[in-house]
Amino acid sequence: MGNPRVGIVMGSDSDLNIMQDAVKVLREFGVESELIVASAHRTPYKALQYAETAEERGIEVIIAGAGAAAHLGGVLAAVTTLPVIGVPINATALQGVDALYAMVQMPSGIPVATVAINGAKNAGILAAQILAGKEPELRAKLKDYKAKMAQQVDEKNRKVQEAVIE
Amino acid sequence: MGNPRVGIVMGSDSDLNIMQDAVKVLREFGVESELIVASAHRTPYKALQYAETAEERGIEVIIAGAGAAAHLGGVLAAVTTLPVIGVPINATALQGVDALYAMVQMPSGIPVATVAINGAKNAGILAAQILAGKEPELRAKLKDYKAKMAQQVDEKNRKVQEAVIE
Amino acid sequence: MGNPRVGIVMGSDSDLNIMQDAVKVLREFGVESELIVASAHRTPYKALQYAETAEERGIEVIIAGAGAAAHLGGVLAAVTTLPVIGVPINATALQGVDALYAMVQMPSGIPVATVAINGAKNAGILAAQILAGKEPELRAKLKDYKAKMAQQVDEKNRKVQEAVIE
Amino acid sequence: MGNPRVGIVMGSDSDLNIMQDAVKVLREFGVESELIVASAHRTPYKALQYAETAEERGIEVIIAGAGAAAHLGGVLAAVTTLPVIGVPINATALQGVDALYAMVQMPSGIPVATVAINGAKNAGILAAQILAGKEPELRAKLKDYKAKMAQQVDEKNRKVQEAVIE
Amino acid sequence: MGNPRVGIVMGSDSDLNIMQDAVKVLREFGVESELIVASAHRTPYKALQYAETAEERGIEVIIAGAGAAAHLGGVLAAVTTLPVIGVPINATALQGVDALYAMVQMPSGIPVATVAINGAKNAGILAAQILAGKEPELRAKLKDYKAKMAQQVDEKNRKVQEAVIE
Amino acid sequence: MGNPRVGIVMGSDSDLNIMQDAVKVLREFGVESELIVASAHRTPYKALQYAETAEERGIEVIIAGAGAAAHLGGVLAAVTTLPVIGVPINATALQGVDALYAMVQMPSGIPVATVAINGAKNAGILAAQILAGKEPELRAKLKDYKAKMAQQVDEKNRKVQEAVIE
Amino acid sequence: MGNPRVGIVMGSDSDLNIMQDAVKVLREFGVESELIVASAHRTPYKALQYAETAEERGIEVIIAGAGAAAHLGGVLAAVTTLPVIGVPINATALQGVDALYAMVQMPSGIPVATVAINGAKNAGILAAQILAGKEPELRAKLKDYKAKMAQQVDEKNRKVQEAVIE
Amino acid sequence: MGNPRVGIVMGSDSDLNIMQDAVKVLREFGVESELIVASAHRTPYKALQYAETAEERGIEVIIAGAGAAAHLGGVLAAVTTLPVIGVPINATALQGVDALYAMVQMPSGIPVATVAINGAKNAGILAAQILAGKEPELRAKLKDYKAKMAQQVDEKNRKVQEAVIE
Repeated sequence: MGNPRVGIVMGSDSDLNIMQDAVKVLREFGVESELIVASAHRTPYKALQYAETAEERGIEVIIAGAGAAAHLGGVLAAVTTLPVIGVPINATALQGVDALYAMVQMPSGIPVATVAINGAKNAGILAAQILAGKEPELRAKLKDYKAKMAQQVDEKNRKVQEAVIE
Repeated sequence: MGNPRVGIVMGSDSDLNIMQDAVKVLREFGVESELIVASAHRTPYKALQYAETAEERGIEVIIAGAGAAAHLGGVLAAVTTLPVIGVPINATALQGVDALYAMVQMPSGIPVATVAINGAKNAGILAAQILAGKEPELRAKLKDYKAKMAQQVDEKNRKVQEAVIE
Repeated sequence: MGNPRVGIVMGSDSDLNIMQDAVKVLREFGVESELIVASAHRTPYKALQYAETAEERGIEVIIAGAGAAAHLGGVLAAVTTLPVIGVPINATALQGVDALYAMVQMPSGIPVATVAINGAKNAGILAAQILAGKEPELRAKLKDYKAKMAQQVDEKNRKVQEAVIE
Repeated sequence: MGNPRVGIVMGSDSDLNIMQDAVKVLREFGVESELIVASAHRTPYKALQYAETAEERGIEVIIAGAGAAAHLGGVLAAVTTLPVIGVPINATALQGVDALYAMVQMPSGIPVATVAINGAKNAGILAAQILAGKEPELRAKLKDYKAKMAQQVDEKNRKVQEAVIE
Repeated sequence: MGNPRVGIVMGSDSDLNIMQDAVKVLREFGVESELIVASAHRTPYKALQYAETAEERGIEVIIAGAGAAAHLGGVLAAVTTLPVIGVPINATALQGVDALYAMVQMPSGIPVATVAINGAKNAGILAAQILAGKEPELRAKLKDYKAKMAQQVDEKNRKVQEAVIE
Repeated sequence: MGNPRVGIVMGSDSDLNIMQDAVKVLREFGVESELIVASAHRTPYKALQYAETAEERGIEVIIAGAGAAAHLGGVLAAVTTLPVIGVPINATALQGVDALYAMVQMPSGIPVATVAINGAKNAGILAAQILAGKEPELRAKLKDYKAKMAQQVDEKNRKVQEAVIE
Repeated sequence: MGNPRVGIVMGSDSDLNIMQDAVKVLREFGVESELIVASAHRTPYKALQYAETAEERGIEVIIAGAGAAAHLGGVLAAVTTLPVIGVPINATALQGVDALYAMVQMPSGIPVATVAINGAKNAGILAAQILAGKEPELRAKLKDYKAKMAQQVDEKNRKVQEAVIE
Repeated sequence: MGNPRVGIVMGSDSDLNIMQDAVKVLREFGVESELIVASAHRTPYKALQYAETAEERGIEVIIAGAGAAAHLGGVLAAVTTLPVIGVPINATALQGVDALYAMVQMPSGIPVATVAINGAKNAGILAAQILAGKEPELRAKLKDYKAKMAQQVDEKNRKVQEAVIE
């Protein structure tokens, strides 16, 4: 098992249920990741230190998952030039719109690459797409994955053809 | 002129136009304030250091004004136990809803006392209300201010009575 | 047991489930509070009288919790210069957005320090932060609380490291 | 000129521009109204007193126009059993949605009859419809008004038929 | 049992669960009502005919409850000068916002007095308030009802005082 | 010039500016249309009669443009089985969201084929697509139109290649 | 059993539960349809090919059902001049608003005839209305269907008359 | 001048004003880009072909800018495993919320890395961050850029200190 290349940070362990989808899909691509609980508000220096030292520890992409006023992505992106992917989490009465706006509307200069509400799986795939820039084998795996998804759609299509609608 | 007791932090000097309303209303109450530009994303350590050292420098309340994914209030509140008042600023296509949600929806443990979009004047008044807890003269000034507002409404009422509607 | 220093007003006893979080967290800080049911619409004079006499009875901060067209915070703030903290409650089909807008968008002159939808715990912490302005021991307790939160995050981080993801 | 039967209350004279539409349309129906500036937050007792004594002074319907966290309608309705019509005014970055939610989402027991954002004219017509319950002549005028509106639509239709579209 | 004075129209019998609150509260005030299912879209002429003939049959106020693209209030208001009260019903994925906007945003000339989403009880009270314009006894009952509500709040307050919060 | 096959109904002549885009694009396809001002609320019977008799007068598709609580599409669709296309118009503080929800969220049984806010041109194209079902020449014109749009994109691409960005 | 005239495409078989309503209502009208799973994102060429060849295979109307960033309707409409009806599906935390906006807000030139969130039944009826342009018998069936709906409303009205409200 | 490594695709030349910010910031980093007008709806095959062949032509990141029902990002991402960055453009009455939802809410399997509404500059920076994964010099430039931003904030802070507020 190699060193983790993707750092997955979440504000609370209650987000684990969502964020583990990123771990799983990265594992499918053979990409090692690490899962960290660090809060932009409760442990800001831990969070900053994590992001600041990520590059030197071999992390190439950071994924940040957070709900509510989801500052985690922005706080990490503030102190690294690694790409930071944000996963807004549906965790309040506002059903994730708060987290989405707090992540995607980053001011000029500090992007957070935001995916769908609860979209941790897509965050993992996006991380793999980024890593694939210098790794042809990973690119090939991504193409296989795409092909497999297409096959699954065809499979579903066949099942629907057989469904009896009454 | 005494030491500033209220620290007014804003993410960009483009917010000065809005945030100076807090300075002005505090001045009406005889409360000294200081205006700082510090960004949660561009100068995170400056922002954190400001909040961390605020108490020892005599600051008693912090006001944070920011637009877009407005993390400033939360980032300051993360490292101080002084009350932090947030002013969401209307600075994007989402017309301040992004900043409002990013400020008010703070997770459990780290409150940001949020006022209306662009409501810097109310942030100043709220800061004065907080300071008045240990300063009866300031409390008296706040009561005068309230009385004056009531008089202005009566004045406006008189003017409306004289308006000719055709 | 001392006199209550924080008055927690709610529009209906159905809000008790949410609002008791403020009582509890204040108790952790050793701050006495009182819980009142008074409605801006059903008992407006009770509500006003409560706020008007709060200061002389030793109340230093008021917390108002209400759902729907949540006027309670504004109505209390209209007749006191004590800081009023608003807790918008998720009580209708609009899932708290109605209460949030009705609390946070207060017009110039009468601030309501609004926290997150259902954020009664943060309202309690904010009240303690305000009271701490003249009480160094309370400030110390708030710092301990912050430290404890950070430890809990570290604890959660450890647990996540041990989680098996399959 | 008779006594006013409709009381039109607004939170600020800046709302006069909108609210005078109610005065005008009521005048078309021969219904006398009065225009009052009274604020739920700056002059709450004036506002309450106005509503409480309205009935005995001969007012039969109250119209309340307010923007932002528009509590005026609810505050007036709290102390009268006269019908209260609310006009949410577009006065903030939220473009009237805040005022709409703060008016229409009144809790059980205290209705505010809400019309469209900036819909002061419709508030006037609704007031006339209510008064017409005991005044057949007013009912007749309302029917004439309706017929006239229909004619105007027909007129507009004729004009559109003649429009040259290139 | 007298003739119905309030006509309660709903678009579907699935709205009965909500709309019966209007019947019940009107009955408390001794006001007779009738419940009709008529759809703006499925039986438009029935709906129009109902509203057009309502006045001559002794109906003095119409209440319309509908969900989704809730046109019922507007369609009824188009052909009567009786006051029409609209109850937006939470019946779709948009959770009543669709019905609210479709009811409250009526164009100039044709008001619909809109109450809260699912607010049938308030619609009934508003209808009683309108009828009370010419019926002092009903006015008295409304005042009693208001007083009773205040007592209930006091009752709830007492219960909350006794609640043990741990 | 043949008989109109598409009836374009709008609630007010103020919508002409938007709705004429439908006339123009239909003319490009050689499809005759007629423009009618008829209001769901001010002239409901005219509107209903128009839709009811449309089929027998040779109209094959109806386009309805309206803003605010935009009931026009639903009211027309209630009394015809012709396809009704709805154009929500941006005419209020809610910027067309009210009209969009009031058109698209039609209840089961009575569809309105809704296009984008202010999308009258697309309404015209959709009408032509519907008519093309029995008219191969019109289908051919639609294909030419599509090809021309593609050419325009290529043209724009060429222009962008030549643009100097400094 | 004839050839399918309506092609119902959905992005995933998880949408079958919703989309089968279109199949069923079309069957009531005697219109044959086919159900296809094809994804704008996972099998884009399948989706495009389906739409491109639909006309020559006898399909006259396409219905596209999709949730989230629902591009399916737009992608199909890009390569056919057949009318494309869009059904936004409630499949994410945003409860169908994402799918609605992604379908209805199509740019100029490429309309998607959008129905209500989850409104597959109305999509089927709209498809039948379009087909009825050249098929008088289908038109007659649509009229019968409308009449039956009206009868059901009358039926529901009778039931409501008998309901006992306590 | 080297080969372009970032492909910037936009749906219309009217988006050039926004999207050129990406070109400019990439140029600051010494990264060559190309600007393409290709529409998901008007030239779908061009758009697909562009994305499909991008990798072999040396493109390493794609940026897609589009307004309204912004499908462009999703359509490109469907046929490439390169990272696709989406820029939602404020181009309709919905002020970019439509484009934001249509881009960010991509279904599982096909991520689009979404930045703020009109955030083309951040899209450019994000692209550079991605490319920097295999290019230490570019990483160094990004760090310089970050340092320069921090200096600008300090500069602004100095200016604000000198501002005279009256």
